[in-house]
Amino acid sequence: MNFDDPIDRRGTHSSKWDKMESLFGVSPDDGLAMWTADSDYATAPCVIAALREAVDHGVFGYSWEYPAYFEAIQWWMKTRHDWTIDTDWVLTSQGLGNAIALCLDVWTDPGDSVVIFPPVYHEFAKKINKTGRKVLECPLVRDGDTYTLDLDDAQSRLTGAETMLIWCSPQNPSGRLWTPDELRAVAEFAERNDLTLVSDEIHHDLIYPGNRFIPMDVAAPEARHRTVTLTAASKTFNIAGQRTGNMIIPDATLRAAMKQRLNTLDYGPGALAIRMITAAYSPEGAAWVGAQMQHLDSNRALFDATINAIPGLWSMPLQSTYLAWVDFSGTGMSHDEVTARLRDDARIASSPGPGFGTGGAHFERFNLATQRYRLEEACARIKAAFADLQ
Amino acid sequence: MNFDDPIDRRGTHSSKWDKMESLFGVSPDDGLAMWTADSDYATAPCVIAALREAVDHGVFGYSWEYPAYFEAIQWWMKTRHDWTIDTDWVLTSQGLGNAIALCLDVWTDPGDSVVIFPPVYHEFAKKINKTGRKVLECPLVRDGDTYTLDLDDAQSRLTGAETMLIWCSPQNPSGRLWTPDELRAVAEFAERNDLTLVSDEIHHDLIYPGNRFIPMDVAAPEARHRTVTLTAASKTFNIAGQRTGNMIIPDATLRAAMKQRLNTLDYGPGALAIRMITAAYSPEGAAWVGAQMQHLDSNRALFDATINAIPGLWSMPLQSTYLAWVDFSGTGMSHDEVTARLRDDARIASSPGPGFGTGGAHFERFNLATQRYRLEEACARIKAAFADLQ
Repeated sequence: MNFDDPIDRRGTHSSKWDKMESLFGVSPDDGLAMWTADSDYATAPCVIAALREAVDHGVFGYSWEYPAYFEAIQWWMKTRHDWTIDTDWVLTSQGLGNAIALCLDVWTDPGDSVVIFPPVYHEFAKKINKTGRKVLECPLVRDGDTYTLDLDDAQSRLTGAETMLIWCSPQNPSGRLWTPDELRAVAEFAERNDLTLVSDEIHHDLIYPGNRFIPMDVAAPEARHRTVTLTAASKTFNIAGQRTGNMIIPDATLRAAMKQRLNTLDYGPGALAIRMITAAYSPEGAAWVGAQMQHLDSNRALFDATINAIPGLWSMPLQSTYLAWVDFSGTGMSHDEVTARLRDDARIASSPGPGFGTGGAHFERFNLATQRYRLEEACARIKAAFADLQ
Repeated sequence: MNFDDPIDRRGTHSSKWDKMESLFGVSPDDGLAMWTADSDYATAPCVIAALREAVDHGVFGYSWEYPAYFEAIQWWMKTRHDWTIDTDWVLTSQGLGNAIALCLDVWTDPGDSVVIFPPVYHEFAKKINKTGRKVLECPLVRDGDTYTLDLDDAQSRLTGAETMLIWCSPQNPSGRLWTPDELRAVAEFAERNDLTLVSDEIHHDLIYPGNRFIPMDVAAPEARHRTVTLTAASKTFNIAGQRTGNMIIPDATLRAAMKQRLNTLDYGPGALAIRMITAAYSPEGAAWVGAQMQHLDSNRALFDATINAIPGLWSMPLQSTYLAWVDFSGTGMSHDEVTARLRDDARIASSPGPGFGTGGAHFERFNLATQRYRLEEACARIKAAFADLQ
């Protein structure tokens, strides 16, 4: 479990490293990739061991989602999140993005509006627009060190065309963990407006010490008849390349509709992904995640200390996720100037805040899931790029 | 390259072995799995080496379909099939079944009829029915040792509701290779009736010595504006568990429609599948396939000799595929009795002929892609199960 082992991901078909030049103009020769939400370190030894066993076997014929896979997911939700689920609630998607797309496909029609609470994961709005639905933004409110909800304001924005709400918990990009009261209020909002409630909980395992994540279905079981929870092992174990996630749907009617769609599309996960996830959701996997969180906790402490020491920059304190959300508005610089300093001077590819919707204009998101030496280098470069402010 | 190395697939989450008892009542303890079309031997060493490299790297973050992947597909089609394709004609599916489902989704509407030529791969009819379309059967004609087409008869069966034709070449279950004249006639039939022509060519690499496979797009390039060719490395290299295939679409308008559907669904292949396929479509992979065909050629010779020595049984001579198509009609037995002897006496799980549609009633399909010792055992058991006829 050494998260600091040097690993060169360049030339390994990593989107994060091999596409940074074409997308951000930052060469991997001397650049640092801090955008896409995957990690630069190896996955858990138990996952690698399961893969080695499959590779040694050498036969890669037809497989299926066998019972141990679903039992591992059930065990994980119970032991880590105190969430009791039936194994048959779990449907397998091709990952979070695909799951969002399928939810839009199954439970909304073209022309419908879909409620999101920006600044939020940029793919929500992209998927909604791509499928011919409309984005209805109900912005979060900046409240001191964090964001809060204003559901009265949200209510006043609705037009009657809304049929779905896509919720993000833990919140990406802020790392905000929602309280049970807040979750219940969101569920009531969905109920009042008859919205299918899709809860993206993909970052649920990446929780910093002293904090606690509550699944929507635990906080608001009364909303089960409209709730679809999306999770995955992909962030937790750095296996996003296998494109596999869970759609956990307690309600039989909702579940039948999604099952029917998956069935007619002949969807199914790859056999190696199934093995990886089954191995990951285990006591060994849990111990590895614990060690990863210690590593990330020390990374975020260094990063925040560096950022907050630069006048005009501010890093939102994270309760969860390895994604730091940095406000550059105190510099008085345009986003273009901030970007120029990050890309040209610091040679860092980070995720542009404006992509996260209203509220993201002066922000940039930085991925901290890397080796300590890379994070130290990133901190030194950001410090130097904004040296004139210090 | 030893196709006879003993490998026990039981308990490895192999559908073929681990589901034979629940589906066919044949216990894997003493049964032989000869149904699902995957192989019991290990994949090519170059594929395993590529996987080992990925596992050693240990990082499984976001990947994408990188240029070398498409170039490998292009190289394979050119060198093995003398088919010149552009890399941008290739879209990636989740395998053949998913590709068929997507074609139905994109180019037909519920209630449309879809033309198939039975006996043919059972999933065609299943997918057509599942998606609310209708099957229009235009049966192949038994002509001596093989099947032929009767397109005049087919024409007379059309109702005007047909919008797609799903073609199978090489033909599953008969192993028939179609001549350029036949392929052109099918393309003209599609043109005359304005049908999208979906050509399932998944078995195109499994061709026995002395035979030659011609892609539809090579035989009938004039039909490009309506042709979608489906291929995969999955049968050729025994990697079906990775659920990845190609949709090769020369026509820009057809391609844009499928690309749009894949894009809105956020489809994409797993990173390990991409690595496996890129490694497979190589000179080393081609050499391995050559060796595999020698193995299969010797398996089919033994199998056919055994079957044809039993009065009333007859195995259709294969030009391609590892799927033997055996006619039991000469026994005068019902399909139930044939099945009882195969399942209860021989303890063999084979694919029931009736599932392949009209013309399959007295047949059974046997998968020969196994170790020689297993095939010998299967032959001995079939011989014993029908000993009273000899």
